[in-house]
Amino acid sequence: MSDSTDNKEGSGFMGSIRRLSRRLSGTVLSADSRDVKAYLVRNDKRNIYSYDGEDQLKVGGIVLKELAEEYGTPLYVYDANRLVDNYRLYLGSLKNVKNFMLCYAVKANPNLALLNLFYKLGAGFDVVSGGEIARCLAAGVDPAKIIFSGCGKTVEELTVAVKADVQCINVESWEELDRIEAVASRHNKMQNISIRVNPELNLDGLSHPNILTGSGGHKFGVPIGEAVAIYSRAKASASLKIKGISCHLGSNIDKLEPFIEARDRLLALADELRQELSICVEHINLGGGFAAQISGASAHVSETPAADTIPQWVERLAKPITERGLKMVLEPGRSLVADGGVLLTKVEYVKAPPYGQQHPIVPGQLKGGHEASAGLTTEFKYNVAGPICETTDVFHRDLVLGQKLESGDYVIIVDAGAYGSSMTSNYNTRNKPAEVMIHDGHPTLIRERETYEEQFKREKLVLDLKLKSLNTVEEAESQEDLNNAA
Amino acid sequence: MSDSTDNKEGSGFMGSIRRLSRRLSGTVLSADSRDVKAYLVRNDKRNIYSYDGEDQLKVGGIVLKELAEEYGTPLYVYDANRLVDNYRLYLGSLKNVKNFMLCYAVKANPNLALLNLFYKLGAGFDVVSGGEIARCLAAGVDPAKIIFSGCGKTVEELTVAVKADVQCINVESWEELDRIEAVASRHNKMQNISIRVNPELNLDGLSHPNILTGSGGHKFGVPIGEAVAIYSRAKASASLKIKGISCHLGSNIDKLEPFIEARDRLLALADELRQELSICVEHINLGGGFAAQISGASAHVSETPAADTIPQWVERLAKPITERGLKMVLEPGRSLVADGGVLLTKVEYVKAPPYGQQHPIVPGQLKGGHEASAGLTTEFKYNVAGPICETTDVFHRDLVLGQKLESGDYVIIVDAGAYGSSMTSNYNTRNKPAEVMIHDGHPTLIRERETYEEQFKREKLVLDLKLKSLNTVEEAESQEDLNNAA
Repeated sequence: MSDSTDNKEGSGFMGSIRRLSRRLSGTVLSADSRDVKAYLVRNDKRNIYSYDGEDQLKVGGIVLKELAEEYGTPLYVYDANRLVDNYRLYLGSLKNVKNFMLCYAVKANPNLALLNLFYKLGAGFDVVSGGEIARCLAAGVDPAKIIFSGCGKTVEELTVAVKADVQCINVESWEELDRIEAVASRHNKMQNISIRVNPELNLDGLSHPNILTGSGGHKFGVPIGEAVAIYSRAKASASLKIKGISCHLGSNIDKLEPFIEARDRLLALADELRQELSICVEHINLGGGFAAQISGASAHVSETPAADTIPQWVERLAKPITERGLKMVLEPGRSLVADGGVLLTKVEYVKAPPYGQQHPIVPGQLKGGHEASAGLTTEFKYNVAGPICETTDVFHRDLVLGQKLESGDYVIIVDAGAYGSSMTSNYNTRNKPAEVMIHDGHPTLIRERETYEEQFKREKLVLDLKLKSLNTVEEAESQEDLNNAA
Repeated sequence: MSDSTDNKEGSGFMGSIRRLSRRLSGTVLSADSRDVKAYLVRNDKRNIYSYDGEDQLKVGGIVLKELAEEYGTPLYVYDANRLVDNYRLYLGSLKNVKNFMLCYAVKANPNLALLNLFYKLGAGFDVVSGGEIARCLAAGVDPAKIIFSGCGKTVEELTVAVKADVQCINVESWEELDRIEAVASRHNKMQNISIRVNPELNLDGLSHPNILTGSGGHKFGVPIGEAVAIYSRAKASASLKIKGISCHLGSNIDKLEPFIEARDRLLALADELRQELSICVEHINLGGGFAAQISGASAHVSETPAADTIPQWVERLAKPITERGLKMVLEPGRSLVADGGVLLTKVEYVKAPPYGQQHPIVPGQLKGGHEASAGLTTEFKYNVAGPICETTDVFHRDLVLGQKLESGDYVIIVDAGAYGSSMTSNYNTRNKPAEVMIHDGHPTLIRERETYEEQFKREKLVLDLKLKSLNTVEEAESQEDLNNAA
């Protein structure tokens, strides 16, 4: 039995990363067991990471090990070029699609540097909170590029949006319509609005049920059956200007058909509004939800849209919209940023396989073509777990690698650009990670690592804490002593 | 059909809160559908919230509406008295149990004010990260009261712990033992340790699988079959002093039997260590995991330990330990703080029932005894959802209330003291909530509300962002104009 280091393909430290990064595919959110098929599909795809002649793993020309040593781990690393490419993929549709507005869904990754980059590319922004508006403004975004969506908008948030003259507010409910009207009226504004309609499609099985939003009974939007009535109500307002019709099906959907079905329902509604109420909307907003081009991120791996399908999808969706002279709005998030970032981290411990139950695995057939040398290759199986005190803090189970991992090795979790940083918590008092963007061959620290002190600097003790008729620390200690002595 | 306001039991604003708070039971983590049984059980229990003669909902003598108006919502409100009572429940066992150390599990709620309170009561602290050590020190805790647990301890974290002379480090793996020894040796310290043994019990069905940690295959601890070997290794070290044996089964377990089984395995191991290796441990650490005394928080509502069972559990667990002259250590978190806090929040919108499918519900039999007046009572059903752009952001489905909720009403989510604040994120750029502790009839702001600016102040733009051969914002806009004109 040869050790894997005998395998001339990638010895030592970087060899193990090479194998890991080739095989480990998945976002932080959905990184559980992947099948081999997913890895093979992945290998057909151009990744933002690659190895140089000295087996050094790089992103955007920068050696990741050097980044880890300079900025520490865990570290999010984004490749500006990939973000630009992903945006251009949509923008490329402009050749054939007239009248198209692309709004980046800020919730996917709200780092100011990413917002600023997309703004410079000409993007609009889909925001869902006052905080996301504040981020856009801090990133230099023109408020006229902001569409404010999201349920539960407060008076304070709406006041900021109305006063800033955001381009449009997507209205989630009758009650919110009243509130927007009141805020606009109070500030003598004519506020552009679009009603978020719930098209009530049957979306079963299209994505994880927790990230689907466009079927019946969800908390989002106005049921399509009430749409004519609420548009009639909006038309009667002196402070509201109707601009469009909106919907949002959910997230990580890898089939075009539900988007087509939703579009057709919205177009039928537009016709109805024109004929019955003489309301002429200007845009149809189909929201976001395209699956990212990540192998294994979806249950339907083989049907994940390839890069070159995005413009085709956009064109197919847009055709009947623009033929009516309407503008199409899309609000992608995941598909713009997911594969543009990796999470760089370090192996702290490699726990010995318990009981010796797990053994190196010798495959009967060698996979990976040029990667594998002739002859047998020893493989090692790992569960990759994080340090949080929860059994769920596992990034990958039964990860098969071509050689051993060791404490101190750096590894990357790929396709971590979307819903990674934006969903971090401070549980276990862990600091939020630092973030770096690689641009033009240079890294920029776009988010400094948090410190412990920052986490609790807004907390304070109850200084005059009187715990009457209780054991104080001294009493308890003497009681403990007493017990010990007894 | 009478409207519920005709019901003389609790009219108006506070009446709806009264009903909500009586019926809505659950932590932020596990607040999904509850059955009626849970509510009835709840009604037998003394809550930290109650109504005064004017139907004002109070915690610790303070009217919650006034707190909301002063500090805003969402707002965590803790009752110092309940935290003290919960601690005393355990401490009461000291009358019968000799040699018992109670360590608060900081991860349940790490607010400095809570740590300081428990420290003044004499508690020790179970920490799982360098950040939690930093919190303890900032709260004035003596490091000799700290037990450092948790998997994935870094060299930096261990160095802080060793240099601070924490009471004991619970060792999670062979590799960690080596690292602790190296750190202690480097700093000329003799470090107290305990091995965290995985007792490999069958815990199926005892709690949610994601929060069970003490069965085979979990990432935590050393398999019990390797325990003698690793203790032998530890004994040989000149820098390590063996103090105890530890385990941790999981969280929210509402049966005593698994703890007894784990204790007996650890005691058998203690005997084996003494006989075979002449290692005399001083303590047996059974970890945490007692279910909180929350109706509905567990699937086994009727078997949730009542308040008066905690001392009995402690005594039963301790007896054979202390009879051997050993100290028992417990590390409760949830059961000390869960019912000591509520999350006070505000109704933003009451969306109309879609399609009129939902109707007021007239129960055939009146429930709640003294709460319900004679005659029919109209009831209303609500889904209580938060503002996050995720379908899962729902606190309660099909909540039945005795009267209507209105926008602007304040409501509380009860039993939110554990794993509420500590697991918050900034997703959607939401600010972390403020926190207030009520003590001696006075509120203290123990955590200021976060601000948007704080969320992104560590971020910065890539200033020299050159997006060569790309549409800049001006070009894209002119392209859009071009398209519009076409």
